[in-house]
Amino acid sequence: MTISTRFIDHEHDGTALQAEFAADDAVAGPRPGIMICHNWAGRGDNDGRNARRLAELGYAGFAVDLYGKGVLGSGPEENAKLMQPFVDDRGFLQSRLAAAHAAMREQPEVDASRTAVIGFCFGGLCALDMARAGLPVQAAVSFHGLFMPAGNLTSPKIDAKVLILHGWDDPMATPDDVLAVTKEMTAAGADWQLHAYGHTAHAFTTPGANNPDMGTVYNADADRRSWLAMVNFLAEVLD
Amino acid sequence: MTISTRFIDHEHDGTALQAEFAADDAVAGPRPGIMICHNWAGRGDNDGRNARRLAELGYAGFAVDLYGKGVLGSGPEENAKLMQPFVDDRGFLQSRLAAAHAAMREQPEVDASRTAVIGFCFGGLCALDMARAGLPVQAAVSFHGLFMPAGNLTSPKIDAKVLILHGWDDPMATPDDVLAVTKEMTAAGADWQLHAYGHTAHAFTTPGANNPDMGTVYNADADRRSWLAMVNFLAEVLD
Repeated sequence: MTISTRFIDHEHDGTALQAEFAADDAVAGPRPGIMICHNWAGRGDNDGRNARRLAELGYAGFAVDLYGKGVLGSGPEENAKLMQPFVDDRGFLQSRLAAAHAAMREQPEVDASRTAVIGFCFGGLCALDMARAGLPVQAAVSFHGLFMPAGNLTSPKIDAKVLILHGWDDPMATPDDVLAVTKEMTAAGADWQLHAYGHTAHAFTTPGANNPDMGTVYNADADRRSWLAMVNFLAEVLD
Repeated sequence: MTISTRFIDHEHDGTALQAEFAADDAVAGPRPGIMICHNWAGRGDNDGRNARRLAELGYAGFAVDLYGKGVLGSGPEENAKLMQPFVDDRGFLQSRLAAAHAAMREQPEVDASRTAVIGFCFGGLCALDMARAGLPVQAAVSFHGLFMPAGNLTSPKIDAKVLILHGWDDPMATPDDVLAVTKEMTAAGADWQLHAYGHTAHAFTTPGANNPDMGTVYNADADRRSWLAMVNFLAEVLD
C-alpha cells in the first residue's frame, strides 16, 4: 500500500476551489470515488485524513472544498457566516456539489460510475442534498449531519442508498428532526437507514470537540461504530 | 469447524424447558455464550439455525425455550395466548430468563463471565428485559422487538450494552414507541444504539414472513444488515 495525495484545483461559478485527493498506488485501475464533505469550518486536516483512510480501504478519497481555496473559518461565528449562504440557497449548494463531483470523476483513479459521498455536520447536509438532488452517487452517508429539507426541490425522489449516523443528544438535529427526516426519506422512496447513538452529542467524530454547552463533544465509541457502519455500507453498495 | 448441537433440558418453576445448544468442537476452551430468545411462536427452527450461525462465529449459541418443552404456537391466535402471560407478568418473564441464562452458563463450552442475549419480536422484549433486570449479560440485541417498559421495575439502571435493530414501519413498535424507548434507555444510563431501517416492517428477519396486513414482512436487506450489525457489536463487546 502506497497512499499518494495531491491537491486538485477546480472552479465553480467563478470561485477557485481546492480539493484534497488520496488513492493507493498499489490498487490497479479505476476504483470507487468517495467525496468527503467538510463541516462548517471548511475543508480541514480531518477531511484529508479521512480521504487517506478511504484510500487505505481501496477507494479514492476526495475531500471537497465548498467555500473556496484556502477559505477556513476560525471559530463558530465565522464558520456560521461561511455556511449560511449555502443553507439559504440549496440550489447553489447542490450545483457546487455537482461541480466537485465532476472534478472527482475526472481523476484517472476514479471509476466514474461508482461514487459515493460522506459528510460531517454541514457536510452531512451536503451528502443528503446530493441524494435529494439526484446527483449520481450510489450512496450518501451523513455523520452528525443537519436534516433540514431542501426547499428548492419539490418531492424529491432518492435513488442513492442513504445511511444517517446520528448522536441522539445532538441539539442541532433533535428527535423531532429525526422523525421529519425519516418521513422525508420514506416519501422519497430512499433505501435509508438511521443509526442513533445514545448519550452522544453533535460532532461525535471530531477529534478534540469538547463543548457540552454547544452540544459538540467527541465520542470515541460513536466515532468507531459509525466509521465501521460506513465501511460496511460502502462495501455493500460499491464493491 | 465442527458444529455440534444438543438439546438441554432444564426446569423453571415446575415447567420443563428444552433449549437447543450449538458450539464448534474446534474451538478450545470456554467461549462467550449467546442466548437466543424466540418470537411469540416459541423456539423454532430459525432459533436453532441462529444458534448454529453463532457457533460458526466461535460463540456458543443457546436457543432458549420460554414456553415449555415442545410447546409451540400454531398461528397468531395461539402465539398471542402463549406470549401474553409473560407480557403481563414481567417479573415472571425475567425469572424464567434468569433460569435459562443459568442453564446456559452451566455448559462446559460457555465462559460464564462473557454472555449476551439476542432476541426476535417477543424475544427482543426478552433481550431488553434481561438488560432492564440487571441479569449479568454484557450485551443485549433486539431484532424487531417490542419496547414496552417493564412495569415491575422502578427506574432500572442498565449496565449491558444495548443494540436495537428496528424496522421503521413496524406497526408493533411505532415511532412514538421508538421515542419512548430511547428516553427509557437514556434514563437507564445504558450504552444504547438503535438502527432503524426504512421501508421495513415487523419480522424482517423471519424467512417467509409475508403478511403486509399484519405488518410482518421478511426483508433481505434489513435481515443481512441487522445480522452484520449484531456480529460487529458482539465482537466489540465480547471478544
